[in-house]
Amino acid sequence: MPIRPTLLDVMEARARVAPYVSRTPLHRYLSLDKLLGAEVYVKHENHQRLGAFKMRGGFNFISQLSDEDRRRGVITASTGNHGQSVAYASSVFGVKAVIVVPEGANPDKVESIRNLGAEIVFYGKDFDESRGYVERASREEGYRYIHSANEPALIAGVATYGLEIMEDLPDVDTIIVPVGGGSGACGVCISSKGVNPGVEVIGVQAASAPAAYLSWKEGRIVESDMNTVAEGLATRLGFELTQEILRDMLDDFVLVSDAEMNEAIVMHLQHTHNLIEHAGAASLAAAVKLGDRLAGKKVVLVASGGNVTLAHLRAALQASDAN
Amino acid sequence: MPIRPTLLDVMEARARVAPYVSRTPLHRYLSLDKLLGAEVYVKHENHQRLGAFKMRGGFNFISQLSDEDRRRGVITASTGNHGQSVAYASSVFGVKAVIVVPEGANPDKVESIRNLGAEIVFYGKDFDESRGYVERASREEGYRYIHSANEPALIAGVATYGLEIMEDLPDVDTIIVPVGGGSGACGVCISSKGVNPGVEVIGVQAASAPAAYLSWKEGRIVESDMNTVAEGLATRLGFELTQEILRDMLDDFVLVSDAEMNEAIVMHLQHTHNLIEHAGAASLAAAVKLGDRLAGKKVVLVASGGNVTLAHLRAALQASDAN
Repeated sequence: MPIRPTLLDVMEARARVAPYVSRTPLHRYLSLDKLLGAEVYVKHENHQRLGAFKMRGGFNFISQLSDEDRRRGVITASTGNHGQSVAYASSVFGVKAVIVVPEGANPDKVESIRNLGAEIVFYGKDFDESRGYVERASREEGYRYIHSANEPALIAGVATYGLEIMEDLPDVDTIIVPVGGGSGACGVCISSKGVNPGVEVIGVQAASAPAAYLSWKEGRIVESDMNTVAEGLATRLGFELTQEILRDMLDDFVLVSDAEMNEAIVMHLQHTHNLIEHAGAASLAAAVKLGDRLAGKKVVLVASGGNVTLAHLRAALQASDAN
Repeated sequence: MPIRPTLLDVMEARARVAPYVSRTPLHRYLSLDKLLGAEVYVKHENHQRLGAFKMRGGFNFISQLSDEDRRRGVITASTGNHGQSVAYASSVFGVKAVIVVPEGANPDKVESIRNLGAEIVFYGKDFDESRGYVERASREEGYRYIHSANEPALIAGVATYGLEIMEDLPDVDTIIVPVGGGSGACGVCISSKGVNPGVEVIGVQAASAPAAYLSWKEGRIVESDMNTVAEGLATRLGFELTQEILRDMLDDFVLVSDAEMNEAIVMHLQHTHNLIEHAGAASLAAAVKLGDRLAGKKVVLVASGGNVTLAHLRAALQASDAN
């Protein structure tokens, strides 16, 4: 089992990634305050380069590769944002990158990965099948395999946005963070609770892809169905390292439906004037669901990314129109 | 005539507003590179607090008010973003603010102004009629009148984003900036040409509200029709101070139609995954129009704000669907 990152690792990661990533804003929205009866802030990782928080992990990981690994090149499986991150950091550090995506992956994310100069392989009907391919190719062709969750350097890297939240709002009560493989939620736990153990961190996952949720509830790695439109949350399996951290540190975990994420996308357009992808909007959907439990609190909603396609945006608007 | 701000004023403004405004990112988008045949960057003032660049001017202005003016309170006319900016800065500095908006103003911007604690007055069918009311009320009730363009402190404040562009991309060739009253364009001219006189600055205005364009072309203050959906560009009149600066410093000026701005909104959603308002998308519309003239250049598109209503977003998507 890889070693769990600490607040010190996060500080070191920040020094490492600062030249390459944006420090994103934490904006308060008075109209969300009214709607949720709380003091509501959004951590805008959709403003990050390439539109998602993953960038922070990619740079922390790739910048620390050994000379040997740089020569070998890297390979990873991704539904898109992690792949963009590895592709981008690899291009900056002159490392060959192979990104394996499921067939039918978000075409905007695929185009971005290609524009960044990485080799793209389409394999499998979902992320977990792509991951199987990557594990074989890594063994057979000698690429350094980057697991999207079981890598301490990725977690410490993405945790840097949690540190920014604590700097901007040290007296935050509750942080709501989307969970896919769990690196973002682990990062938020490590950085926010490292500064103030009293911060409450609540994870949110798609009800139609609840592997991490079920693994956390049952205290063991669980496999489950995966049918969500929110590709950023789409995995059939809980992962060892992130599950271990979440089991210790995450205070609560809620599920939201794809319809609730669609509504939250439209609420973001209306109230924050930001385009947020399904996974990123899940934190707002969870806040709506939690209702009175947040009353009067200082709440941060992590908007983890904004890379939604025009087709999915149109569908979200049509669904909200029909209600 | 008020005194024209210099690069030194911009530096001083930055020291003043830094605690209150975000340093916004300048992101490159490889898919826009392909589309425009240039190296394309977007200056994301839509990521600014309250979603628009105006904030920078409001804080620079309000933070320098005399004790006497703070006691009197301030009054201004606005189509929305300038009003939000004055309302926000006034709330932080404990100054009473009255914001006069035209009937039918963008309801999102109006709600934001109200949430910030300012008094709202609806008056007139457009910005210029609201302005007439403000001038009378200022005389009769003693409020400090803030003109949205003829105020050096507003121009120096908004110019701080131009300085950030030069820091992030010192070898920029061309900056395309939306023009309403002209404070943003003047700010970009002063800061970018103050650092490198060789930078080309191109203004863009709505073809259906070309007052600043006509004033610039003819070298005198011209009044014109105003029928654009882009309220951020909606004025019937060129203004003295900004026109004087633009006449000296602006390299070129183009007009775009409302349909071209709608298309640019959709292009932004697709290629940058950002929600940009009509005025803010005008710079991308202009780049499309300029075509070959930008080939191979390093181009910055100023996305001045993101405060578009859901209704206008739906209309833009429907228009693009119909094409």
